[in-house]
Parts: sequence; structure tokens; C-alpha cells
Amino acid sequence: MENLANHVTIRKFRDKPVNDELLRDILENGIRASNTGNMQWYSIVVTTDKDLLNQMAPLHFNQRPAVTAPVILTFCADINRFYKWCVLNKAIPGYDNFLSFFNAATDALLAAQNICIAAENHGLGICYLGTCVYNAAELITLLKLPQRVVPVTSVALGWPDETPDLTDRLPFEAIIHRNTYRDYEDMDIKILYKEKESLASSLQFALENGKESLAQVFTDVRYKKQDNEYFSEKFLSTLKTQGFLS
Amino acid sequence: MENLANHVTIRKFRDKPVNDELLRDILENGIRASNTGNMQWYSIVVTTDKDLLNQMAPLHFNQRPAVTAPVILTFCADINRFYKWCVLNKAIPGYDNFLSFFNAATDALLAAQNICIAAENHGLGICYLGTCVYNAAELITLLKLPQRVVPVTSVALGWPDETPDLTDRLPFEAIIHRNTYRDYEDMDIKILYKEKESLASSLQFALENGKESLAQVFTDVRYKKQDNEYFSEKFLSTLKTQGFLS
Repeated sequence: MENLANHVTIRKFRDKPVNDELLRDILENGIRASNTGNMQWYSIVVTTDKDLLNQMAPLHFNQRPAVTAPVILTFCADINRFYKWCVLNKAIPGYDNFLSFFNAATDALLAAQNICIAAENHGLGICYLGTCVYNAAELITLLKLPQRVVPVTSVALGWPDETPDLTDRLPFEAIIHRNTYRDYEDMDIKILYKEKESLASSLQFALENGKESLAQVFTDVRYKKQDNEYFSEKFLSTLKTQGFLS
Repeated sequence: MENLANHVTIRKFRDKPVNDELLRDILENGIRASNTGNMQWYSIVVTTDKDLLNQMAPLHFNQRPAVTAPVILTFCADINRFYKWCVLNKAIPGYDNFLSFFNAATDALLAAQNICIAAENHGLGICYLGTCVYNAAELITLLKLPQRVVPVTSVALGWPDETPDLTDRLPFEAIIHRNTYRDYEDMDIKILYKEKESLASSLQFALENGKESLAQVFTDVRYKKQDNEYFSEKFLSTLKTQGFLS
């Protein structure tokens, strides 16, 4: 319980491997996660080979966790295995569609979070790499993923070489809605984001980027419309190539 | 750690509410989960009102957990709040696209799994309701979700009124790939699914449904092609209506 409340993302790892036994123990916890119809529509590629990690780092834009972690876990929506099992058993699979992809992605993401919590319980650090979906196509090539397999998130894993403070979160009332959704008036938004906006790190962030507001750092620098649109098309095209969208 | 390994899905709940303080404690753990750029692109609708629960049950096909749980959590990909914050701060949001939806869905799913683990740590039981994405459109109406908000999974939560055994999982080697993906030969599939196929419950399942194999129960009864295709189109259409697909 304590670990959930104290989660911090680790972006710098010690040059020390995660031993196989510990890694297996952690991964086994992941496999117990809830999943759709107990079909387990996901796979996890555990990359520890230095050459491969070096090839993978640029696909994650050479972010520090991707460069320093001894292990990268690539969580994949995977219907390939189940599909083959169906065909071998004279069952006609009907999973070449978006719903099945989304169910498989959900399975992969719940397992990912289980594994991150298990890892943190052992003193390891984790960093999710959202770049996984930006460069899903290139990861498919590098990791030799077949049809009906799509990477949906990656996690850099290792022994922490930093002790960051807890990061801010929006107030409870920003995220939680009672019974039905209560939409936000302008005043609500101002109140809910006030603390975030006034953090020294936020003010610094805006200043460094020459922006008037923290929000502009997100829209103009970090998560830009043109990038989002480009990577949307790219990811949709990957879903199509891998057999999940007609 | 122990709880991760001992996870079971609870489908029957006691007629006893989850008190507010406990619920808040659990939800606060969820909000600490990793998320995209700390933008927290998700909301959680916590439904405890009996009338609303009764209206929601059919949208979850009246599955027992949806009928007996005192709390249903609806996890939503939510860019509405962030979008409004951007507009208020003269920042032009570029999030009306599939990538942003997928990032937001990831945020929501990681928080969901955190909350499930926190709930189990307190002795509560959970059941994921995959029906959430089947009837996302109807849930949007019932829960008054605005544009740029889409439910991606639901969790039935309450005090367990059953003590089910651990369910089977595929062997570790089925899910985990070392360094790169190792595709499955027919013989691999036969070995990896052997235990699952030979379980008494699997044999019973095939027999009851008049099928030759367990795989056929999945393809012909539980997760049928025509249903998957129908609900794929329906979910994609909801993504479009809510502003995430052009």
C-alpha cells in the first residue's frame, strides 16, 4: 500500500543488472493480472541484450531512462498466440478488429502496472516510455513482432540511481466524479490547476521555454498538435498493417 | 506482493457498502499512478447510487458482479479537463486525435490497476467489466460524459461473498519473450495450451456448449467474430462522436 502512494518515476539507473531470478519473480506477478476472458492477449518482450538496448534507445528518443536501464520491457497487445491456438483447434478466430486490439491492449497495460508495482516492492525503479506507441512500427521490426502483435507501452527497469521527490498531482476532486460526471466551469478549472500552476518547477518550465503559461509549454513544446496528428496516423497505420483495422 | 500473486476476480458481493473513507483512501492510491507527462488525462466516475447502479447493470449485460456490487468505478480517458485548462490559458490544444485518446486510455487503465490492487490490499474484491467498451455510448449518456471523455474500463468493487480458487494461467514461457519475439510453432502452441485444455473446467465448458474444443467455445460462443465486429464499429463510432477520430 505504501508503495502505491510513494511511486516516483526513475529516469537514471545504476549500472547493475537485475538478476534473472528476481526478474522472473516480478514478471510472474504480472501474469496474475486480470485479463479479458482469461485469454491473456498480451506478450512481454524482456530486452537485456546490450546491442539491442542500444538499437532501441533512439526509438525512445534517447530519453535517459531508455539509455541507462539494464532492462526494457515491451508490453504488446498479442492475439497471434491465441489465433494460432484457434486455428490448430478448428476454431475460426474473429479477432482482426479494433475491439480485439483494445481488449488486448488493456490486458497488456494491466499486466504492465502489476509488474511495475511488483518491481517497486523489490526496490527497483521504473519509467514508462510513451514513445513506444510513437515508434511502434520500428519496435515491431527490431523485436521481430509478427502480425497481430502491437507494442502498446514500454517500461525501463533497473536499480535507481536517483531519489526524486514525489511529483504533484491534481486534487482528488479534479479526477473523481460522484455518481455521474460533473463538468468543469472555468472557475473549477482555475481552482483545480492553481497549485500545479504555482509550483516553482512550473514557473521555471514556462520561463525556460519562453511561454506565458504552463499550459502553453504542453501545447507548444511538449505535446504539439502536429506531432500528435503525425503519430496518430502512424500508429493507426501500424494497427492496420498488423491486422487490427480494416 | 502476496496480493498480486493471489489475485482472483470476485463476481458476487455482500450486501454491504464500502465506506467513504476507505473508498477515498483507495482512490487516492490510484491517483499516484504513472501517467502521460503528468497531465492526468483520465477521470473516474464512482457510482454508488442504487438507481444509477440499476440503470447501469443492463449496460454490463446484467453480469452478476455488475448486479451485486455496491460500487461501480467507470474509468474514462478524459482530455476535456486538460483541454479547458489549455483554452483558459491561451494555449491551443491539439488533442482531438487517436494518439491522445490512446495516451489517455493508458493513463486510465494504469490508474484502474493501481486502484484494484489498493482495494485488494484492504480485503475488497474486484471484477473488471469489459462490457464497458461494448456499451461506451450508453454509459456516456447515463453518466453524462461530455465531449473528449470516453469510458475505457469499469470495475465492480465490494466485499467478497465468495472465495474462488486461483484461475489458470498460461506457462511463463507463453507470455515472456527474451530479447526479441520468438514466434510459435504448432508444437509450441500445443505444449503451452496443454494444461489449460485439460482442466476439468475446460472440458466441462466444451461439453456444455456442444463444442469439439475449448477454442471453439471462445470463437463460437464467448467472443464471436460478428459480435467483435459489431462492437468494434460501435466503439470506433463513439471515439469519433467524442472527438478523438476524424
